[in-house]
Amino acid sequence: MPAPAFNALVSRLSPPPVPSVFAWARAYGGARGPLIDLSQAVPGYPPHPDLLAWLGEAAASRVYAGYGPIEGETDLRTAYAAEVAELCGAPVTADNIHITSGCNQAFMAAAMAIAGPGDAVALTDPFYFNQETTLAMMGIERRLLWLDPADGFVPRIDAVREILATGVKALALVSPNNPTGAIYPAGLLREIFEACRKAGAWLILDETYRDFLPEGQRPHDLLSVPGWQDNLILLYSFSKSFCIPGHRLGAVTAGEEAVAQIAKVMDNLQICAPRAPQAAVARAIPALKEWRDANRAEIVRRADTLKDVMAQLPAWKMDSLGAYFAFIRHPFAGTPSAVVAEKLAKEAGVVCIPGAYFGEGQANYLRFAFANADSTTIASLADRLAGFTLD
Amino acid sequence: MPAPAFNALVSRLSPPPVPSVFAWARAYGGARGPLIDLSQAVPGYPPHPDLLAWLGEAAASRVYAGYGPIEGETDLRTAYAAEVAELCGAPVTADNIHITSGCNQAFMAAAMAIAGPGDAVALTDPFYFNQETTLAMMGIERRLLWLDPADGFVPRIDAVREILATGVKALALVSPNNPTGAIYPAGLLREIFEACRKAGAWLILDETYRDFLPEGQRPHDLLSVPGWQDNLILLYSFSKSFCIPGHRLGAVTAGEEAVAQIAKVMDNLQICAPRAPQAAVARAIPALKEWRDANRAEIVRRADTLKDVMAQLPAWKMDSLGAYFAFIRHPFAGTPSAVVAEKLAKEAGVVCIPGAYFGEGQANYLRFAFANADSTTIASLADRLAGFTLD
Repeated sequence: MPAPAFNALVSRLSPPPVPSVFAWARAYGGARGPLIDLSQAVPGYPPHPDLLAWLGEAAASRVYAGYGPIEGETDLRTAYAAEVAELCGAPVTADNIHITSGCNQAFMAAAMAIAGPGDAVALTDPFYFNQETTLAMMGIERRLLWLDPADGFVPRIDAVREILATGVKALALVSPNNPTGAIYPAGLLREIFEACRKAGAWLILDETYRDFLPEGQRPHDLLSVPGWQDNLILLYSFSKSFCIPGHRLGAVTAGEEAVAQIAKVMDNLQICAPRAPQAAVARAIPALKEWRDANRAEIVRRADTLKDVMAQLPAWKMDSLGAYFAFIRHPFAGTPSAVVAEKLAKEAGVVCIPGAYFGEGQANYLRFAFANADSTTIASLADRLAGFTLD
Repeated sequence: MPAPAFNALVSRLSPPPVPSVFAWARAYGGARGPLIDLSQAVPGYPPHPDLLAWLGEAAASRVYAGYGPIEGETDLRTAYAAEVAELCGAPVTADNIHITSGCNQAFMAAAMAIAGPGDAVALTDPFYFNQETTLAMMGIERRLLWLDPADGFVPRIDAVREILATGVKALALVSPNNPTGAIYPAGLLREIFEACRKAGAWLILDETYRDFLPEGQRPHDLLSVPGWQDNLILLYSFSKSFCIPGHRLGAVTAGEEAVAQIAKVMDNLQICAPRAPQAAVARAIPALKEWRDANRAEIVRRADTLKDVMAQLPAWKMDSLGAYFAFIRHPFAGTPSAVVAEKLAKEAGVVCIPGAYFGEGQANYLRFAFANADSTTIASLADRLAGFTLD
């Protein structure tokens, strides 16, 4: 017999996008100065030294070598619940938290708890590519909610209602957004959530970049809506805020019944998230508040620098700038974004992600993860981009 | 609108089995002496102190705080490939290895790379419960290959051919087996593999307990079959052998094309396994060989002790004893295994997993993870079980 096939839902997916972008970066010869990496979202500063010490201490301990609770360490669930409760002004407890191995896993576990093969889930276009491929490989149909650049890539409530009316099981949003950086206003999120409830749909809200909202800004009041537990799942990542993506730690905030369903998925998927980083981050949440606030302010400064840079480059249109990312219309309309991004990496030493990776209609865009680079580096983009051509 | 439902493929699953067993253990009052925990497979000895030091060192390092390669750290892939190559006497390279967050995740990623909703995958009965629920939640049909206690729970080749003829996409086996401990002979594994190739099916072989085979025993020669890459996926866990389940580390051995498909799944599922434990285990593989061999010998001694104990208990039938586990027929035929296991935990302080968790036809059995306990503790089982009744 011939060799058996792979699962077509997986084999038809493109290879993971980030490594292909890294390959372009490796091909840069250095002619324009040091590489400027604005591709994968990784803060350009290291973790706090105390956190590194706590990570080392927990990892060296016999205590965390054994299996832990599926839902996560009680210390971390409690500390994170307290943070969410304070930030959102709502009663959230450890029982509402499920710890995961990063936010991709949080999305997959939440989506699987809610939707099965043949169900439909709505995403925006542009979308975060791994959410789209996660649904695809699970046989869940994705329906796309087109976002208009003229609206700053923020959804319109009537378009949300229309897509909900098609009978989707859930609407998945990302705010602050990846790839556009757009921050969805709290009032709009409330309207969207009410529309989901009316339509009998779940709202999955990925808040990976929540810590980079301007200080003092409450992201939303969804956790104050009575009965939110029936329709709402919030996702979060400790990777960006604590600069520890290599330790793989994320979290779900949901009703207790949803946490119980997600625990079933997680038990199969990996039993529990790695324990030592959970112990360390449980200590870091209360201890490193000031450090995180300082990083938040630093990233706002980086955004300001990028704004100044882009103002000097009239051919490049910054259609969206927000927390962490900018979504930039390149000057070569009609040329695929991957062609532009590849040349930009190889010749100008500026690495970013092609817009087309975030949706078929996004070929005129590039995603700049500006928060990866310090302000001096961001300022040097002016020179790199000004002289850049496709010839 | 009413609250939206969960995914029926998930909501119809029972809650994860291990925590419910722990609840029985917590209800034990101590009347018969210290608790004897033979439930979740966790070696009763701690990790090697050098490994704990390396885990701490890597976790405290800035290097491993960042994202790593999806397929795993090159050091670990190389070290583990060398170990597999030596053990199996076959040319395996780092390109054949994909590191995962534990072996449950290795199974899920491998199964998803191969089979989609509506496909069928064959498991044995008894099965490892998380493999069965993983298929169920992905909408993959499972077909069961009944194992006869009279055969020591080892599959018969004609039964394998029969189930392959039903058109399954893959056959998933576990050897040394969980729950029975049975070691499938290398010759039988080769026959089974040839049958899979003839039928155009994948063989997924979970070797989590491979390190507890008697010393010098080659598990199989499957990696010497030309073209094995088209049909074979081996799974492994570093949890048992290195006593670090809390760090969540496993591995897939497969052809390069299968590794590429699994990488797509892993990228969505969690981007990469946690990096610091990968760095530490890469050092431990060559360094702790003697320590692992000593543990292997210790666990063989524990098996011998259990054999002696069970010989004193004629009402309890040890239908299978092997690497790590024994599958024991309790004396209360007709009483559900969960009832027996609950009472055994609460009143005799002996915690084990009910046979029914491993298949509907296994209600007369209990799984003893004897390797969790030292020989003195195992010897004390004689007294605990001899006086045990359901009254």
